Formats: sequence, C-alpha cells, structure tokens
Amino acid sequence: MSLLVVGSVALDSVETPFGKRENVLGGSATYFAAASSLLTRVSVVGVVGDDFPLDELEFLRKRGVVLDGLEKVPGKTFRWKGKYGFDLNAAQTLETQLNVFEHFQPKLDAAARRAERIFLGNIDPELQMRVLDQAERPRLVCADTMNYWISSKRAQLLKLLPRVDVLMVNDSEVRQLAGEPNVMKAARAAQRMGAKVVVVKRGEYGALLVEAEDDGFAGARAEPEGRSIGGERSFFSPAFPLADVVDPTGAGDSFAGGFLGLLDRLDASDGSSLRQATVMGSTIASFTVEQFSLDRLRALDLPQIRRRFDAFRTLVQFDALPEHVA
Amino acid sequence: MSLLVVGSVALDSVETPFGKRENVLGGSATYFAAASSLLTRVSVVGVVGDDFPLDELEFLRKRGVVLDGLEKVPGKTFRWKGKYGFDLNAAQTLETQLNVFEHFQPKLDAAARRAERIFLGNIDPELQMRVLDQAERPRLVCADTMNYWISSKRAQLLKLLPRVDVLMVNDSEVRQLAGEPNVMKAARAAQRMGAKVVVVKRGEYGALLVEAEDDGFAGARAEPEGRSIGGERSFFSPAFPLADVVDPTGAGDSFAGGFLGLLDRLDASDGSSLRQATVMGSTIASFTVEQFSLDRLRALDLPQIRRRFDAFRTLVQFDALPEHVA
Repeated sequence: MSLLVVGSVALDSVETPFGKRENVLGGSATYFAAASSLLTRVSVVGVVGDDFPLDELEFLRKRGVVLDGLEKVPGKTFRWKGKYGFDLNAAQTLETQLNVFEHFQPKLDAAARRAERIFLGNIDPELQMRVLDQAERPRLVCADTMNYWISSKRAQLLKLLPRVDVLMVNDSEVRQLAGEPNVMKAARAAQRMGAKVVVVKRGEYGALLVEAEDDGFAGARAEPEGRSIGGERSFFSPAFPLADVVDPTGAGDSFAGGFLGLLDRLDASDGSSLRQATVMGSTIASFTVEQFSLDRLRALDLPQIRRRFDAFRTLVQFDALPEHVA
Repeated sequence: MSLLVVGSVALDSVETPFGKRENVLGGSATYFAAASSLLTRVSVVGVVGDDFPLDELEFLRKRGVVLDGLEKVPGKTFRWKGKYGFDLNAAQTLETQLNVFEHFQPKLDAAARRAERIFLGNIDPELQMRVLDQAERPRLVCADTMNYWISSKRAQLLKLLPRVDVLMVNDSEVRQLAGEPNVMKAARAAQRMGAKVVVVKRGEYGALLVEAEDDGFAGARAEPEGRSIGGERSFFSPAFPLADVVDPTGAGDSFAGGFLGLLDRLDASDGSSLRQATVMGSTIASFTVEQFSLDRLRALDLPQIRRRFDAFRTLVQFDALPEHVA
C-alpha cells in the first residue's frame, strides 16, 4: 500500500461568518495528506517558499506522512485568500498569489514513482500528465480539476482523462466539462471521455459515485476489463448533517484524502470498497469543516472516524416496504 | 385509513428547457392526490372556476380519489405561469392569478372532518388553521408553507405550528422561518416553535427528515409524549439520480403525497415508517419530474413504484468498515 499526492501546499487567509484566520495552513496536498494519513501511508510532492513554517507540518510527519518530495525554494509560498457568506457552498476568491507555485515542476523520486495510488490535486493538467509520465504503474489514479483548466487547458485535460480511474469534481465542473446541465448525463459524458469512475462532490448535499453507464441504475453492467475498478451500480452518500460548519475550505481535498486513504488501506477498488471510500470521504470532510484550516484534522483520530462512519449508516438506513404494499 | 388534502387545483403554464405546456393540470392538491391515491384513499378539498375541465380529474376518480369537497364556483380557476432554466431547482414565477382561489374558504363535510391524516397544502396559514378547526381528531397533520406566508402571516403561522406534526418545507423556507442559515439548526428551531417533525425538501439533492433535537445524531432521544410520532434519529434520502428531468413542477407536492400516502397505507408513524415515507416521497417525486404536468403520475402504478423504492436501497447501501480499519 502506498499513496502519493501532488498538489498545493499553501498559506490561506479565510473569512467566514464565524470568524477569520490569516496565513494559516492550507492547500490541496496538505488537506489530502492530513485526511489520508489517518488511514494509510502517504507521500507529498509539492513546493513551498522560504517563508513557509515547516514546523506546522510536524503533525503530518508524526502520522507517517513522507515529505521528502516537498521542495523548499526561494520566494513566497502559494497564497489563497477567500471569503464565505452564509451560503457556505460557494467561496469567493479574493486573491490568489501563485508565487513559487507558478514554476512548480513535480519531480517524483524513486519511491514516489512506485506509488500504487496517486491523487492529482487541482493543478495544470499538463503537470498532472507529467506526474503520470513519471509514475511506474499506479493501480489507481484519481484527479481533481476546476473551471479554469476546463476552459483554458481543455485539450490537455482531454488527453489526461483516459489515464484517470476516478475523476473527482464538483457539480458545476462536471457540467462544464460535458456541456450538459444534467449531472448524471454529464458524468456519463466524462466517462466517454475516458474517466472510468466519476465522483461528483456536491458540498453540503453529499457526493455521487457514478461507476459506469447503466440503465438508470436498474441494470447490471459488465465488469470493466483489465482495470482494478469494479462494482455494479452508482451510489449516493449524503453529507453529514452538521449543526456547526465553521469553514468549508479543504472539504473537497479531505474528501479525496478519505476516499483514496481508505482504498489504499483496503488495497481494493471493487464496488463495495468504492462505496465505503465515498462515505469515508464524506466522513472526514465533515470533520474538516467543523473548524478553521486543518485544526480539526490535526486533532482527529480513527475511533472518531469510525463512529461517524457508522452514524452515516444510521442516517441513510430504511426498511423495505412490507409485502402488503403492492 | 383516510387521508385529506386541502390545497390548490390549478391550471399551469410551464416552460422548461425541454418544452412548454399551456393551461395544463396543476395545483398542490392535484399533485398530492395523484401521488397519494397510488397508495391509499384520499379526499380533496379545494375550489375551481367554471372554466375548469373536470374531465381531466377522471383518472383520479378512477383511483378512488373523493372529489366531493372540490367546489366549482363561477369565475376563473387559479392559474400559475412559470419558467425554469437549466438549474431546474429554481422556478421563476411569471404570473399568479388567484381568481376563485382568492375567496376560497375550505369546508369539510362530515366524512372529511373524520380524516385521520391531513395535508395542508401551501395556502394562507389562517385557512390552514380553519381546516384544523373543522377536523375532528386527526392522528397526523402535515403542513407546507412558503416564503410569502412566512413573512406576511408570521403570527398566524406560529399559532399553527404547535398543531402540526410534520412541517414540510424546503431549505430556504426553513432557514427563513428560523432566521438561521444552518439547516439543522433551523429545523430544530422550527421544532421549538411547535412542529414535531421537520422534513426539509432539497430538490435534486433529496430530503432530510429531522425528528427531534438530539445530540448531532449521536444520541438517542426520548419518545415524544402523547403523539403518534416516534423514531429515534434523523434521516436523509437522496433524490433519485435521473438522467431526464423535464419539469420539476409538483415535485414537492407529490413528495408530500407519497409521504402521507404511505403513512396512511401503513397506518403508522413510528421512526421506521417515517423513513420509509420519506423515501416514498422521493420515489414518487422522481417520477413526477420525468414528464410535464401530471402526465407521468397519470401513467404510474404500484409495481413501478416498488421497483424504484427498492432501487433507492441499492443507491445508498454500503458495507460496514472491516474490523482491521481501526
């Protein structure tokens, strides 16, 4: 089992109706690693500037995160500044400073090249491709992307998709990619572009796992050939209904960390595991948003995760209709 | 078992990206009756004008719907005209003509007064109260409302809520009622205002059943006293992921029809039944939106409903974590 994440390590300044934080730990690779390291061993490939407080990653190292691939270069660290209103589903980006991230060239060392599972955080699809070109034979590749790349680097993204096992995007991204307003049809279109499985993240509304085209969930489907992805049908996981959501930053990347962390821990990607992974993603993301930055992930442990995972089962469980209702 | 609905019977003109229809059958009581009559016997109290094509309700009569309480009076029928863009969650109301509905005074005959379960469609809370004043001893009262009444008839609505077992509203309505952006907190606030159970309808994102205040779904709770509502925890049902949504009009009212239709059929309102009712609501609503007006509900039968209800189980089912993930 070995998991690799390539993505941003950042300093975030965030304001929500519940408070604000300046220059706190953020970035896709950071959230991903904090989440997945609760379940498995993860390596980070990324870059920070010489202003970055490496001490703050000490809690990750203690959880076994390999930071050998995190370069420190002269200059300032990637910074993101954003604001959320009461509708916590939508961040308003106030400022993005790429800084040292602008010239980031992901380099995988010998160990990283042998990673069995790879998460390509939301970076330029050309860089995502270069990561895959260095990887030896990953058993599972999961990629995130965003509206900016979908419009500005569409050709590169379309070249990448056939090498992606799990495309993990939000509602509007999958719609934009497919040019199709219906999410189910859009997910199927993304599959025709090459992604084997599509996970649609829907913020406070949960996540939808779409495995392959089938007959409106009614029909069985053939197992895909020669890939480690299986399962018969699609699946929906709600978001955990929380009374206190403080800061949604990082929810998507910690979802991805829970998802891939569990698949790596289980060393599987059959249908049952993909469903459990989707719930694990929702579980860990539900903790992330309870506090600012990585504060909640820092304090999280596996018994807490198991309890909430089980609570998801209770949340969606219902009995079959009695025979007499017919 | 007996179910009563009081609400609008209307002629709708609807435009969606998939087509348009003019002066077709609509109204909360109509959708509710079409949905619930697939499961139980339902009576309608409402009013239409002398322009209303009563023949079009013949399919309801054939399903056993009692239309004795549907008055026909001189004047024009209530008309609604609306439009949906690609975001099918939000209707844009182009025109509302109350017509004969403006002076509607619900009158319950002897049989209707004895109804065991009542659905108060989205009408003036004063009228909703007058219905309850005429009812003898309903075992379960479910009420819908909307932003207009929440702001313009707040006092009357607050008087009504302690007499309501199930408040069935959408996200923004429960937030507005409670003055609280978090849906879980808002639902709890609505419960403190008197509603025993809150069902939050979230359009294409499903429905949340919030039974009573508990400790973030972790804790058990005491059974409410002296009422027929039970159950231990809250529950989430996704919307069925459809590739073809043609017209979302009536989804909420057919959800309510499926919900109360099943409770009436089961003659129960314990926790398990409330969960099944929530899924039944989502099931029937998922058919409604597949075609314009009541076209799909007209052609629907119980075997189709059972199959999709079962598909919901598959949609949310996942395995417990193995012991070694700890």
